[in-house]
Amino acid sequence: AVDPDRLWNSIAETAQIGATAKGGICRLALTDLDRQVRDWFVARCEAIGCRVTVDDMGNIFARREGRNPALAPIAVGSHLDTQPTGGKYDGIIGVLAGLELLRTLHETGIKTEAPIEVVNWSNEEGSRFAPAMLSSGVFAGAFSRAWACDRTDRGGERFGTALEAIGYRGAEPCGQHPLSALFELHIEQGPVLEAENKVIGIVTGVQGMRWYEVTVDGQEGHAGATPMRLRQDALLTAAAMVRSVGDIAAAHAPDAVGTVGLIECRPNSRNVVPGQVFFTVDLRHPSDAVLDEMEAAMRARFAEDARGLGFRVDDVWNKPAVRFDGECIAAVREAAAGLGFPAREIISGAGHDAAYVAAVAPTTMIFVPCAGGLSHNEAESAEKDHVAAGANVLLRAVLDTDRR
Amino acid sequence: AVDPDRLWNSIAETAQIGATAKGGICRLALTDLDRQVRDWFVARCEAIGCRVTVDDMGNIFARREGRNPALAPIAVGSHLDTQPTGGKYDGIIGVLAGLELLRTLHETGIKTEAPIEVVNWSNEEGSRFAPAMLSSGVFAGAFSRAWACDRTDRGGERFGTALEAIGYRGAEPCGQHPLSALFELHIEQGPVLEAENKVIGIVTGVQGMRWYEVTVDGQEGHAGATPMRLRQDALLTAAAMVRSVGDIAAAHAPDAVGTVGLIECRPNSRNVVPGQVFFTVDLRHPSDAVLDEMEAAMRARFAEDARGLGFRVDDVWNKPAVRFDGECIAAVREAAAGLGFPAREIISGAGHDAAYVAAVAPTTMIFVPCAGGLSHNEAESAEKDHVAAGANVLLRAVLDTDRR
Ligand SMILES: NC(=O)NCCC(=O)O
Ligand SMILES: NC(=O)NCCC(=O)O
Repeated sequence: AVDPDRLWNSIAETAQIGATAKGGICRLALTDLDRQVRDWFVARCEAIGCRVTVDDMGNIFARREGRNPALAPIAVGSHLDTQPTGGKYDGIIGVLAGLELLRTLHETGIKTEAPIEVVNWSNEEGSRFAPAMLSSGVFAGAFSRAWACDRTDRGGERFGTALEAIGYRGAEPCGQHPLSALFELHIEQGPVLEAENKVIGIVTGVQGMRWYEVTVDGQEGHAGATPMRLRQDALLTAAAMVRSVGDIAAAHAPDAVGTVGLIECRPNSRNVVPGQVFFTVDLRHPSDAVLDEMEAAMRARFAEDARGLGFRVDDVWNKPAVRFDGECIAAVREAAAGLGFPAREIISGAGHDAAYVAAVAPTTMIFVPCAGGLSHNEAESAEKDHVAAGANVLLRAVLDTDRR
Repeated sequence: AVDPDRLWNSIAETAQIGATAKGGICRLALTDLDRQVRDWFVARCEAIGCRVTVDDMGNIFARREGRNPALAPIAVGSHLDTQPTGGKYDGIIGVLAGLELLRTLHETGIKTEAPIEVVNWSNEEGSRFAPAMLSSGVFAGAFSRAWACDRTDRGGERFGTALEAIGYRGAEPCGQHPLSALFELHIEQGPVLEAENKVIGIVTGVQGMRWYEVTVDGQEGHAGATPMRLRQDALLTAAAMVRSVGDIAAAHAPDAVGTVGLIECRPNSRNVVPGQVFFTVDLRHPSDAVLDEMEAAMRARFAEDARGLGFRVDDVWNKPAVRFDGECIAAVREAAAGLGFPAREIISGAGHDAAYVAAVAPTTMIFVPCAGGLSHNEAESAEKDHVAAGANVLLRAVLDTDRR
């Protein structure tokens, strides 16, 4: 079994890198804070004799050798980047439980058949560089490396340039790294497990998600002297579209969600009728067919909302729903049962690196509850016992998989 | 009569200071570009023997002495700052026609009874520092200097600090500068004169204007894993409020206007349910009583739109409607008639420094048309003949007032 205190201390230690006044973490991908936490992680893995390699998308692999060098590694891991209003658990516990697993194997001297690797994926959050799960996406062949490196943040900086700048562009070509399985431990980020008093979520899949960028073109005008009937107010139109996104999600209740998380208004001056508004849309549903309907409804509503103003909808990302691997799911189910934790099957509302890796390796996830289902929020919180339970399920699922 | 070419050349020359790719000007108050255009203006005034003084709000007064040193100066002028998407005419022609007037008096050797002054007021636009007309407001006693200097831009820089930084904090206490009259030439910034083929607007007053700052408090959450019914989405609520502002203006058609020109979303990340939104409201109407109704309707609608989310409405600015001075208006009417320009009376939809100065000196304004009524837009344009006509009406109104 893992050491709950050591795991909890690692969480507290890394939480200082990018700590916010409200008790969360702001550690955007490929910033200097991201470099700091990567350095921390690499040093800890090397300290217990692991070999660390980095691929050319900045994904970090810390490897503990097994008995059989012919076997591809069994991997665990997640991501160390956060949202601007991130918490201390999202992604982080998946990597640090991996470190804890390595430490436990190291201390007990257990030798596995296959090598065991802990992975930290680059830019999972997608807050700084869209789309999310960018580097696991390249790993799985969903995006080309060239395309991924050309993604820019809102300030115009390229992913590739930022990766070089923090010194984490490795030599290994991303994707040429076979895995025999991947298990990702994560907080649920939603309210289900807590509401049902479950400790472990056996994640059977990830819902479909689509991202769009919308640009509405109006005409700048004087806020005092331009009569309402002569205006082309890009924000008034965008506001109608924001409401439409909410309406469309509500119309596909209870499983659908729709979010406008980012909006920029130009020139953004109090007494100028807005000339251009840029905003993003995030639509999700467990069924890709329902997502098709939602997207069609959105396009139709936007055309009405525009009332003659020009607008453009760019498709930024389309990640179809994923079903995880049956054997991996069974390994998690049995580990949870064997350890006596109340568990239930669950479909992930959030996207995860595992959802890409599932295309190239047998994959699943383990969820633990978070208070009030709150995530992407500085107040995100999880219980020490639950995180330890997740890490123990992870350990057992990995060892069981190794044995087979 | 003024020299139309010289006036037009000054406009072209100053338009290079902060010129934008789209043919406009971005010269925000108290930036280094503002300093450059001030330096340009001061040098030109001094070159024709004017004495230039600056008050401690950065207002610049260029004085040509008259015969009678006991008389307070007759002033003309406007502002040289612009919007982020500003044009080449808004404010600028009022100052440069003043310079042209000084040059014309200088060349022809005309001696006036009263001194003639050209004024450049600081931060008229209100885009960088709210409210607009900040320094003419202090001049007229509507704001204290201390309060005005504490206004901050969206980056947190104080007006007072920025004023020191560009070297335009003068020695003269703002407001201790009696004027015997003020005439401000400006483009209309609306569609009326052009639509009626008038060359001169005899401005009889300025409509009332109110500014508000609204903050909506939601709760950050995961865009994929937070069910719609559990969300507190600050942007979804703010979008309803933006629509309400438009509805309230439309409900008081055709004279009312209502604008949300600036919006900021936090944390502004695609996959985070917005936790806080800040936006501004600008409401205007020629009748203060109607503005009271509009404000009450806005507050009531916002309370409905909130649907339980917390929000705050801060009153930032309330500038009641103004009626200009009868004798000044008559001077403009007679000057336009005497010069044979088609003219009509008009109420200004835009705010102007003259609207504050009217409280402490006999004041009025002269409007000239701008193409399509477009202003606060880089495509703002005015005809050379119209600007020259406005400058000649200004010259004659000033000389007639001086004679009385
Ligand atoms: N797990 C997680 O928060 N991922 C970020 C990508 C997303 O689901 O929006
Ligand atoms: N004239 C002008 O554009 N003034 C700016 C203040 C306002 O009316 O919003």
